[in-house]
Amino acid sequence: MKERIKAIIEINDNTSSRVFAFFIQALILLSVITFSVETLPELEPDTRFLLRIFETFSVVVFSIEYILRIYVSDKKLKFIFSFYGIIDLLSILPFYVALGVDLRSLRALRFLRLFRILKLVRYNRAMNHFNAAIKSAKEEILLFIMVTLILMYFSAVGIYYFENEAQPEHFSSIFDSLWWAIITLTTVGYGDVYPITVGGKVFTFFILMIGLGIVAIPTGIISSALTRSVDKKE
Amino acid sequence: MKERIKAIIEINDNTSSRVFAFFIQALILLSVITFSVETLPELEPDTRFLLRIFETFSVVVFSIEYILRIYVSDKKLKFIFSFYGIIDLLSILPFYVALGVDLRSLRALRFLRLFRILKLVRYNRAMNHFNAAIKSAKEEILLFIMVTLILMYFSAVGIYYFENEAQPEHFSSIFDSLWWAIITLTTVGYGDVYPITVGGKVFTFFILMIGLGIVAIPTGIISSALTRSVDKKE
Amino acid sequence: MKERIKAIIEINDNTSSRVFAFFIQALILLSVITFSVETLPELEPDTRFLLRIFETFSVVVFSIEYILRIYVSDKKLKFIFSFYGIIDLLSILPFYVALGVDLRSLRALRFLRLFRILKLVRYNRAMNHFNAAIKSAKEEILLFIMVTLILMYFSAVGIYYFENEAQPEHFSSIFDSLWWAIITLTTVGYGDVYPITVGGKVFTFFILMIGLGIVAIPTGIISSALTRSVDKKE
Amino acid sequence: MKERIKAIIEINDNTSSRVFAFFIQALILLSVITFSVETLPELEPDTRFLLRIFETFSVVVFSIEYILRIYVSDKKLKFIFSFYGIIDLLSILPFYVALGVDLRSLRALRFLRLFRILKLVRYNRAMNHFNAAIKSAKEEILLFIMVTLILMYFSAVGIYYFENEAQPEHFSSIFDSLWWAIITLTTVGYGDVYPITVGGKVFTFFILMIGLGIVAIPTGIISSALTRSVDKKE
Repeated sequence: MKERIKAIIEINDNTSSRVFAFFIQALILLSVITFSVETLPELEPDTRFLLRIFETFSVVVFSIEYILRIYVSDKKLKFIFSFYGIIDLLSILPFYVALGVDLRSLRALRFLRLFRILKLVRYNRAMNHFNAAIKSAKEEILLFIMVTLILMYFSAVGIYYFENEAQPEHFSSIFDSLWWAIITLTTVGYGDVYPITVGGKVFTFFILMIGLGIVAIPTGIISSALTRSVDKKE
Repeated sequence: MKERIKAIIEINDNTSSRVFAFFIQALILLSVITFSVETLPELEPDTRFLLRIFETFSVVVFSIEYILRIYVSDKKLKFIFSFYGIIDLLSILPFYVALGVDLRSLRALRFLRLFRILKLVRYNRAMNHFNAAIKSAKEEILLFIMVTLILMYFSAVGIYYFENEAQPEHFSSIFDSLWWAIITLTTVGYGDVYPITVGGKVFTFFILMIGLGIVAIPTGIISSALTRSVDKKE
Repeated sequence: MKERIKAIIEINDNTSSRVFAFFIQALILLSVITFSVETLPELEPDTRFLLRIFETFSVVVFSIEYILRIYVSDKKLKFIFSFYGIIDLLSILPFYVALGVDLRSLRALRFLRLFRILKLVRYNRAMNHFNAAIKSAKEEILLFIMVTLILMYFSAVGIYYFENEAQPEHFSSIFDSLWWAIITLTTVGYGDVYPITVGGKVFTFFILMIGLGIVAIPTGIISSALTRSVDKKE
Repeated sequence: MKERIKAIIEINDNTSSRVFAFFIQALILLSVITFSVETLPELEPDTRFLLRIFETFSVVVFSIEYILRIYVSDKKLKFIFSFYGIIDLLSILPFYVALGVDLRSLRALRFLRLFRILKLVRYNRAMNHFNAAIKSAKEEILLFIMVTLILMYFSAVGIYYFENEAQPEHFSSIFDSLWWAIITLTTVGYGDVYPITVGGKVFTFFILMIGLGIVAIPTGIISSALTRSVDKKE
């Protein structure tokens, strides 16, 4: 009995296992979409009721799946405290915990329910290749993050001194200036804050010249990591 | 007779074939431009009449070309249902179908006429090299698309919880937040929606740090695919 | 005599040649800056007079340099019609031609004067390395430009059908939509035009997903071209 | 005695040295954060007083550290005038110099205090790898900066001629146009200045097509430099 359930739940090459995996994946996708639909501001009570029914159904299925996964695993505690074991639990927990709590706190707890989408990753073996590339470039990525953070801090301090007097509402402190630094160095450029003084504009020019190089670094790191990872595969 | 037409229509190294290909390509370009000109809001009746004449002329030429292509092909059905066979038909069909329909529905159907531009690709042999690079990196590109979509969904849910109360008009649901996530993670940053709360700004910072890495991935994938593709060519 | 001038004007390893090259380069940079200063809207007559004197001085020096370059070159006609010979002439011509013309047309002609800055390239031998990389990737770059243009045209037509009715002032024709397509696909995102309909936003999502890949292509092309170019150097 | 202090202050593999390095790094991070907090506009006197106490404490620690570093170094003058020696001094100097000066000038001098963050780099040996990559690509990076600057200048002059008459407030001179060129070519696109004439928009299209290639160059340079640097490591 246990062996037969295991053959279905854990990924194998037989048909029933594939059907089960596809069914769970489809249910995850649907529950993610219904979760998004629930946030729409002007939903009719009927729609809200249907979404609630589907939510209950999917939580029941995910709960049964979670219990079966514990049942079939040889090392039960190891599974429960593994990455996917925790995600499996967190993706159904908000439903049960919410029953005894008031509605507003429930809303914050539902954020946890999002972890359910991480299950999509579970069934994807191709991810391994990508993980290998990230692992091999770990040191360089950490170094890049540090360099980027230092550059962002310097940009924020610099623009604060140039723009604080001219635009005290937008550059009121270094923390406000950091927002400008993030949005500018990532080249997003919303346009909510930008320098207006000549000094601030010249400073922005130099920061962006350096920033172009900084943006090029992670591209270079990941590009070379992927190339090496693919070379090894071949 | 059939052989002589075939020598002209299908791409060969003789002069008449080149002249024909150049003439068709020029006509495609011109018909694309006239299609764009037709959308200008304040066109004079005379201009509209001239555009109509040119449209009729180009459709007649493309129809003759289409019939000849069927005539000279050895496996007629295979050509008709091939990618370019379908595009050839779709690029002339709206003209004939529109004759019996009212003007407004015609406008929507004319959208199909755009497929004509795809014919530009037909005569371009250099495209093959590019296709090879895309094909070799197919798996990685699919994986990147999945990772990007998951990141976008998480960004949308996160910013919804941070900004919904402060800006209910811009972040009214997760679908509205998805628009913000797309525009921010691609670094387009129109500036129509952006976070204003401290929590939302800090969240945007972390999402963009990850986003910079995500943008670097397809660059790395295509860069290494092209390098390998060029290496093979040499 | 001719040999001595040649030793100074053409780039050699002696001191006088280096001093001359440095002097000309500095004069080019100064004349580029003064040209920019002249466009400032509220200049005092004294400043304008000083700029005029410097302009006259620099044109005299560049004219003498141009005549000497013709004098020392062995194949005079070849130099005059070479890339740098033409730039040398164009960078001084507006000054002389303007004397007999009215002020407004002079303003348009001065645009040509900008070519003077191209002389900066002349003395830079390192440029050769960069040129080699561009030349080796010529075909791929042309293909990328074609693919980008086709994608931009499709984006413009698509957004026109989605947004024309909702925003007739911003998406009045395919030409207006092209402006949106350019600013969006390059991720500049000024925020002067952006989709507001649900259809337009979903369409923008798909276009940007493809656009991220498109932006990755020239990066990949140039990256691999530079790598190969550096490999050959080593 | 001197040897024992040296063993603690300079980076070694013993425990006391690691504890000291961690303590100094934490103090640097905290003093950087408190410096940012001080710029918040509406601070209460109590908070300001606490920040002042922490500032005094950290400057005392950094001063003792600076004196000890001079004491333990074999070539004292070489350390004082080394990069990190100067940064160490600059990061504590504003505190002492400010004592005899009025408050406003103190504010400008405090900018120098930021150099303290550069000490973070000091303890990071991994930085060497990154430095090697930058050094090997020095020539190409300089060339790229020159090409970018020339392109930016041409863009500014071009857009000035197209947009000056239509938008004299935004494109009043070439210097104003340079701001547009910087923000557009780096794809930041704040949206404070953008072309509105047809000529200006077409010009922007061509500049951006070239600009996409320009942005690809430093990415390619750093990508290949990092790949070679990693290859050598392996």
